[in-house]
Amino acid sequence: MKILLIGATGKLGAAVHQTLAARGHQLITVGRTSGDLRHDIADPAGTAALYAAAGPVDAVVSAAGDTPFKPVAEIAPADYEAAFRGKVLSQIELVRQGVGHVAERGSFTLISGVLADEPIPTGSAASMANGAIEAFVRAAAIEIAPQRVNAVSPTVFTESLDDYGSYFPGMPSVDLARVTEAYVRSVEGAQTGQVYAVR
Amino acid sequence: MKILLIGATGKLGAAVHQTLAARGHQLITVGRTSGDLRHDIADPAGTAALYAAAGPVDAVVSAAGDTPFKPVAEIAPADYEAAFRGKVLSQIELVRQGVGHVAERGSFTLISGVLADEPIPTGSAASMANGAIEAFVRAAAIEIAPQRVNAVSPTVFTESLDDYGSYFPGMPSVDLARVTEAYVRSVEGAQTGQVYAVR
Ligand SMILES: NC(=O)c1ccc[n+]([C@@H]2O[C@H](COP(=O)([O-])OP(=O)(O)OC[C@H]3O[C@@H](n4cnc5c(N)ncnc54)[C@H](OP(=O)(O)O)[C@@H]3O)[C@@H](O)[C@H]2O)c1
Ligand SMILES: NC(=O)c1ccc[n+]([C@@H]2O[C@H](COP(=O)([O-])OP(=O)(O)OC[C@H]3O[C@@H](n4cnc5c(N)ncnc54)[C@H](OP(=O)(O)O)[C@@H]3O)[C@@H](O)[C@H]2O)c1
Repeated sequence: MKILLIGATGKLGAAVHQTLAARGHQLITVGRTSGDLRHDIADPAGTAALYAAAGPVDAVVSAAGDTPFKPVAEIAPADYEAAFRGKVLSQIELVRQGVGHVAERGSFTLISGVLADEPIPTGSAASMANGAIEAFVRAAAIEIAPQRVNAVSPTVFTESLDDYGSYFPGMPSVDLARVTEAYVRSVEGAQTGQVYAVR
Repeated sequence: MKILLIGATGKLGAAVHQTLAARGHQLITVGRTSGDLRHDIADPAGTAALYAAAGPVDAVVSAAGDTPFKPVAEIAPADYEAAFRGKVLSQIELVRQGVGHVAERGSFTLISGVLADEPIPTGSAASMANGAIEAFVRAAAIEIAPQRVNAVSPTVFTESLDDYGSYFPGMPSVDLARVTEAYVRSVEGAQTGQVYAVR
């Protein structure tokens, strides 16, 4: 398949890239500062140009999305807005604007995360964003069929424990190899409206 | 208790008002066009003034929140933004700005809805908003304790079937009397971070 991969140079994106390429897929990589195509998904006005440049694809796979981490006592409305634009609206627009560019039975795979279900201090904006993505996926799925849309919702990556491990005391991490399996399942499988929890 | 009730003249809010008043609580009602205090919660810049006018309260109860309903094929980024501002950020700001005004063991009760879990066509923005609220509640709860925050997540009200019944074929409705029970449970109970599904 021809697959548009957003965030291909990130920790997760690089692993997804490797896994999908090893399975014979052809990847078009996208990032703000790297990749075959340069695009900031937080600016949905540019998404049409991204799809025009990419041409027809069989799947769109997202491994991007930023959210601020701040205590409720310090966070501002602008931080929740940044989380909404950076992770929610950005990925929604990949789907909404992608419907006309993805194959008839093609798929979208979005990224959410464990914080939708299991909170950590400073994580309220990320939790909000992940909960929004997961509910959106269930809702969009029933409208865009036979195109499909799923979310991958991992807990902290084993490979990210050095960076974020202290935020997840006593919570098991998952190896990126298990997270990329969920992307394979979403892209090559037939389900839609699913949230693949990788925990 | 002294309770700030947002949306007190709506279908849900009027029922919540009646139930809480009958239990001996003192209500301060808020709406854009009606109520003891006039305020648009979609404009968080005014929320500080709302809390200043209300004075100290024991609980904040929300029965407001608008989201657009449009097919994915017709919806625009501005509609998702409107849903985010109208139902998500609006209620988040009631909590965030309310922390300094609510009693030490006081509570916030927000409104989400069944579309977080069970989608309907045209409901993707509402689903997104409800999923965001529910995840936010779980996250904020662990930071604001001993203050509490919960969400009430009802399916369609029996009293709204004339308006919206055709969107919920084969889905049982709930009487408003059952929805108001969940508000009582959130306000007078001791749990936090809960989503009370009333289905
Ligand atoms: N790390 C974890 O343990 C963990 C656990 C659960 C969920 N997640 C989620 O997984 C996703 C990826 O995490 P990660 O740790 O792999 O992040 P990362 O290493 O920072 O990588 C992010 C990637 O996305 C690209 N990107 C970021 N924002 C973008 C934008 N607005 N437009 C286009 N490309 C953008 C970045 O490239 P450019 O900088 O070039 O744009 C980079 O390639 C995030 O949504 C995160 O919340 C992570
Ligand atoms: N109806 C259902 O079957 C159903 C089912 C599940 C969930 N819900 C949710 O329950 C909530 C209430 O629904 P409802 O049917 O009772 O709605 P409604 O009858 O339209 O009442 C909404 C109330 O909220 C106030 N309000 C609306 N936006 C506001 C804002 N920005 N700032 C301040 N006040 C505002 C309105 O008064 P003003 O116009 O004066 O501001 C009114 O009092 C909504 O969030 C809805 O999604 C409804």
